[in-house]
Amino acid sequence: MTDLVRSDGRSTGQLRPIVIERGWSGQAEGSALISFGNTKVLCTASFTNGVPRWLTGKGKGWVTAEYAMLPRATNERNDRESVKGRIGGRTHEISRLIGRALRSVVDTKALGENTIVIDCDVLQADGGTRTAAITGAYVALADAIEWARGKKFVGQKSQVLIDSVAAVSVGIIDGVPMLDLAYVEDVRAETDMNVVVTGRGLFVEVQGTAEGAPFDKRELDALLQLGVDGCAQLRDLQAAALAPEA
Amino acid sequence: MTDLVRSDGRSTGQLRPIVIERGWSGQAEGSALISFGNTKVLCTASFTNGVPRWLTGKGKGWVTAEYAMLPRATNERNDRESVKGRIGGRTHEISRLIGRALRSVVDTKALGENTIVIDCDVLQADGGTRTAAITGAYVALADAIEWARGKKFVGQKSQVLIDSVAAVSVGIIDGVPMLDLAYVEDVRAETDMNVVVTGRGLFVEVQGTAEGAPFDKRELDALLQLGVDGCAQLRDLQAAALAPEA
Amino acid sequence: MTDLVRSDGRSTGQLRPIVIERGWSGQAEGSALISFGNTKVLCTASFTNGVPRWLTGKGKGWVTAEYAMLPRATNERNDRESVKGRIGGRTHEISRLIGRALRSVVDTKALGENTIVIDCDVLQADGGTRTAAITGAYVALADAIEWARGKKFVGQKSQVLIDSVAAVSVGIIDGVPMLDLAYVEDVRAETDMNVVVTGRGLFVEVQGTAEGAPFDKRELDALLQLGVDGCAQLRDLQAAALAPEA
Amino acid sequence: MTDLVRSDGRSTGQLRPIVIERGWSGQAEGSALISFGNTKVLCTASFTNGVPRWLTGKGKGWVTAEYAMLPRATNERNDRESVKGRIGGRTHEISRLIGRALRSVVDTKALGENTIVIDCDVLQADGGTRTAAITGAYVALADAIEWARGKKFVGQKSQVLIDSVAAVSVGIIDGVPMLDLAYVEDVRAETDMNVVVTGRGLFVEVQGTAEGAPFDKRELDALLQLGVDGCAQLRDLQAAALAPEA
Amino acid sequence: MTDLVRSDGRSTGQLRPIVIERGWSGQAEGSALISFGNTKVLCTASFTNGVPRWLTGKGKGWVTAEYAMLPRATNERNDRESVKGRIGGRTHEISRLIGRALRSVVDTKALGENTIVIDCDVLQADGGTRTAAITGAYVALADAIEWARGKKFVGQKSQVLIDSVAAVSVGIIDGVPMLDLAYVEDVRAETDMNVVVTGRGLFVEVQGTAEGAPFDKRELDALLQLGVDGCAQLRDLQAAALAPEA
Amino acid sequence: MTDLVRSDGRSTGQLRPIVIERGWSGQAEGSALISFGNTKVLCTASFTNGVPRWLTGKGKGWVTAEYAMLPRATNERNDRESVKGRIGGRTHEISRLIGRALRSVVDTKALGENTIVIDCDVLQADGGTRTAAITGAYVALADAIEWARGKKFVGQKSQVLIDSVAAVSVGIIDGVPMLDLAYVEDVRAETDMNVVVTGRGLFVEVQGTAEGAPFDKRELDALLQLGVDGCAQLRDLQAAALAPEA
Repeated sequence: MTDLVRSDGRSTGQLRPIVIERGWSGQAEGSALISFGNTKVLCTASFTNGVPRWLTGKGKGWVTAEYAMLPRATNERNDRESVKGRIGGRTHEISRLIGRALRSVVDTKALGENTIVIDCDVLQADGGTRTAAITGAYVALADAIEWARGKKFVGQKSQVLIDSVAAVSVGIIDGVPMLDLAYVEDVRAETDMNVVVTGRGLFVEVQGTAEGAPFDKRELDALLQLGVDGCAQLRDLQAAALAPEA
Repeated sequence: MTDLVRSDGRSTGQLRPIVIERGWSGQAEGSALISFGNTKVLCTASFTNGVPRWLTGKGKGWVTAEYAMLPRATNERNDRESVKGRIGGRTHEISRLIGRALRSVVDTKALGENTIVIDCDVLQADGGTRTAAITGAYVALADAIEWARGKKFVGQKSQVLIDSVAAVSVGIIDGVPMLDLAYVEDVRAETDMNVVVTGRGLFVEVQGTAEGAPFDKRELDALLQLGVDGCAQLRDLQAAALAPEA
Repeated sequence: MTDLVRSDGRSTGQLRPIVIERGWSGQAEGSALISFGNTKVLCTASFTNGVPRWLTGKGKGWVTAEYAMLPRATNERNDRESVKGRIGGRTHEISRLIGRALRSVVDTKALGENTIVIDCDVLQADGGTRTAAITGAYVALADAIEWARGKKFVGQKSQVLIDSVAAVSVGIIDGVPMLDLAYVEDVRAETDMNVVVTGRGLFVEVQGTAEGAPFDKRELDALLQLGVDGCAQLRDLQAAALAPEA
Repeated sequence: MTDLVRSDGRSTGQLRPIVIERGWSGQAEGSALISFGNTKVLCTASFTNGVPRWLTGKGKGWVTAEYAMLPRATNERNDRESVKGRIGGRTHEISRLIGRALRSVVDTKALGENTIVIDCDVLQADGGTRTAAITGAYVALADAIEWARGKKFVGQKSQVLIDSVAAVSVGIIDGVPMLDLAYVEDVRAETDMNVVVTGRGLFVEVQGTAEGAPFDKRELDALLQLGVDGCAQLRDLQAAALAPEA
Repeated sequence: MTDLVRSDGRSTGQLRPIVIERGWSGQAEGSALISFGNTKVLCTASFTNGVPRWLTGKGKGWVTAEYAMLPRATNERNDRESVKGRIGGRTHEISRLIGRALRSVVDTKALGENTIVIDCDVLQADGGTRTAAITGAYVALADAIEWARGKKFVGQKSQVLIDSVAAVSVGIIDGVPMLDLAYVEDVRAETDMNVVVTGRGLFVEVQGTAEGAPFDKRELDALLQLGVDGCAQLRDLQAAALAPEA
Repeated sequence: MTDLVRSDGRSTGQLRPIVIERGWSGQAEGSALISFGNTKVLCTASFTNGVPRWLTGKGKGWVTAEYAMLPRATNERNDRESVKGRIGGRTHEISRLIGRALRSVVDTKALGENTIVIDCDVLQADGGTRTAAITGAYVALADAIEWARGKKFVGQKSQVLIDSVAAVSVGIIDGVPMLDLAYVEDVRAETDMNVVVTGRGLFVEVQGTAEGAPFDKRELDALLQLGVDGCAQLRDLQAAALAPEA
């Protein structure tokens, strides 16, 4: 892989500046305002006792997520989905992705019959909103679980989180695989992939799409490697954010 | 009026700490993240050329507003209006109030056939979200108009803003009129009033509601006076936020 | 205050001809077809045992209201909200206002765990539909409570209604405060205010809006006085309509 | 056919008292408040220049209808369709029926490129609301056409209405065919039929449904004859209502 | 009645080729893919224990139907009703018609507290989709009842079906009554009628509409006779499809 | 890879029986009823001149897709999305996937300003409905393009299709990678992947999800290889279906 300098000065395998403001919200059981460069997502975790009716009595908890964008998070204003009266396909798709990613690291039996809803609201969008959302949502989730442990809604020794999870976008631009695409890069990418990886380095989700020309196995492998490396860095930043203050 | 100390230590006629982060959003033509204590509202102003069809060709501009709350802005999570597929009455009512308040200080002829949409999204709610929204929205609006002037969409000397506008809540608790109610105060208030006042001290909107017992003219007068005084302080804070940096 | 003659010959402090046809509907537990001049609103009160789930077991009743307009109540036909699939902000806002006004004079404990829904359907609109609706809704409500007393759903001596309530619009036209604006006056008003007042002369709701120029305290006081006087006349007309026939 | 006396004292072939209050609405181009006994329907006709896009440029007009019921038109309150956010199948079905019935007597070429929307709002329901609506709608339609002629939107000699149209319900109760069923009869009917007939006595619509046992040709013929006779009476009442005052 | 040859070579009283593929679906409790010429409707019957809440505890079952068209069942593509977010009036009307037709031959007490939902999805439309749907739905319904009998959800000797039911369209083209109109005929018909008839030859539903000129009693009688004869043929084809294989 | 026999007797790398009934619909410009075992999807292609407004005047065409399931395509009946009034996230997600897959092999400039809408309606579902839909949709698309060439809406020599495209599901069950999962296999799979591959063997879309445990690179590679091999077989079956009859 070449080491070209990008429009913002990054190397091809370099993340944008990542900032995780843990506990941004004073009201949620867990929260994080995460920035991937100019992309800013507010993630809040809401813990409630009980589970949806279809899960009642099975001794398992439920974790789900909802993603949305403020109307002026983007360069041009978009109509609100509440005003349009319907949720778009993209919103649905990303909400489902975040939920699956989080559930992959949760032991729902250890969670008990409790529900955690993660809201990921994009305050500012500059590419990679879904991967920032997953990465920040994990921090909010971890705090909500600790909150519930404090309240004895979850056992003192229950290992609800069996691993951490983070996500990053990768793509091929002018034939060169690159990590963590900003919006200006995203629109130029021939291939666009989102990779969700656990702290141990295993895949939870791989979603690659040829936006321009179809891609081959060699390109796919290069993208996966970049993504795995990027997620390892994000894992370390999550751990630092969650570390007790010295 | 007595000078009791409130749960947060304020006197009856004292505002909560007000913070106006002008230009919070990197993408909107104007923006402000405004805090009234723990109430935080992100206000963005989106400027576009042209007006809605029903106004076309009349030589006038259009200013409108949309208000919404993030699902976990409050102590308990609320379902998203986009998920419910319909906007609630409270949301509609507040959006319309903000729009009217802003239009009262805009000379739509001086604006020309341009549209400004103000989005007020409550990130955290602790009482007085609609009054914080109006107060912050004015700052975002003022910046969007200056942006448009810079782009020559608005004449160099056009006085689009004919005054400033701010808003504050007042209420009667245990018989005592108080300024700028926090949520714990709001739920205890017998009478609740929102006052929208121009920089010159004239009323744009007065909305008083007896939540408990009906109120008399003397109580009404005391509330109005508190509101006018509070808005004068907010006007000065808006002016400071909008002042060019020295 | 001057005593100009208006387009329909009224003095500035004079109501339009008010007609209250009590018991217009043969099916509702209480009803009134009320006219404020050419504004005609059919108000029906539907009494049912039980309360909404969120109020169950608290020993209190519930009173709520829904306002709507027939599509051709106005000079130009409006699309039905059922056809549009959504209720507009104005409809929501007025329904909420009517419900609050009625609840301000109801002792919900004395009502017991029963629900009264008031439907206010505007058959013809000529300004002041919301104030006519409140004034007529009170009559329908009073009759529904007596019906319930007859059925022993409410105690023989329970004082469910602790006062009466009426409403009227006031406004400033060409600098002159006027009572009970007809539509042609309403569109010309610089300031428009709706005042909801109990039989004892206390305020339940004060909603003043500067449609043109902002208003000052002196104008506000003049409007409030006109509104209080108008509501006192409406109170007497309500009492006459509700009086047992001699 | 026997001549039994019914619960309200009518003979089997007798209509309920029919009242047509022509011009009830002061705002619509044509209107009628029609009563079939306790069933009351307000019919308004709204005339506008132009036609829907799919009909533009064909030199033809358009006539359509919308039917709805007030929530407390019935013995028990029904939720508003605007609140439910969707129009029910029954409402759709009746609106379409009324529109077809009216169009059957309109020469759309003579109408020119104009649209007439007929709103039929049931203020009180006691059986036969759709047939009362058609019968009253014809009167409102006739007046709207004359209004348009006065405004020269329709030629002075254009024969827009090629016939009149009325409708009535018929049904079999305890084996006996009966005309114009009230609600208490309707729910007991084994077979229920709505017949729409022109002034000249021709069928526009025949809708017969076996609610209980299926019916045979002899029963069908008896019902049709009753319906034709009832519509002839309604035709005469329509003509009387539309007659110029002496 | 004359015996003209039609565009597809049929005589005026001749059905199109009718094919009933019983058991087309491997998953439903009963199913049939029915063709009336090029009109193809997939009918599935879904049996579940229990009834809707409003019917619970009355010892009766419930049979209902839903009709829909694939977007490209017709010559030009129609938008999906799911995409439009609302069901059209025509769809509602036909679903209700199918449900009534089926319920007319079901003894709901013999069915017990069970529900059968019949879905009729038009895969290809060439006129007469609602009558094909009713005719095919009966076959699916009969099989679902036998399935339930096999599962002992319905008594071994319960006579749930008290008759069979079929439907066909008839119409007048150029003054000539004709049976089972194809789409090209339907659009030319002056009068259009759908007739639903039981196996014993009694009427369940008669719906005649003057599309062009109104019709008289003689024409109505001719159409009814054609419809009764056509339904007798369909009844025999249903019986053959349901016959146990030799 | 081991060669276990599966519940339906297939080896791990074997497709279910694939049947492509090209031209099933008599009305669409292109169509195919495709079966992957018991999964049956009706794919129709609707060709129209012109493009959506946002694409007008750019000299390019548009290809889009809509996916839906009949309510009783599955073992238990699902409510219709048209009745629910909203489209679910899964439906949106799959519709978007099919559209992207098809567009990846279309030269939209060669298509000219024309639109092709592909409807994929699942008549019966037994796993792999989205991959069957893509594979069948390609056949419908190819025929619609040839139809348009015949009508001269597309140039005689324009190469609109630059490759073919097919899709298949792969998954890991009990640690063993398998091709083309039936429903009973799908629910047991630890990892589930859909692979969309062009005729030349390049990837268009790779969507892998850990339903149970996360997966590693070796497992991912095994799944991709199975998928590429499966798509090569499907490509040959598509070519055979599209071959001119001898």
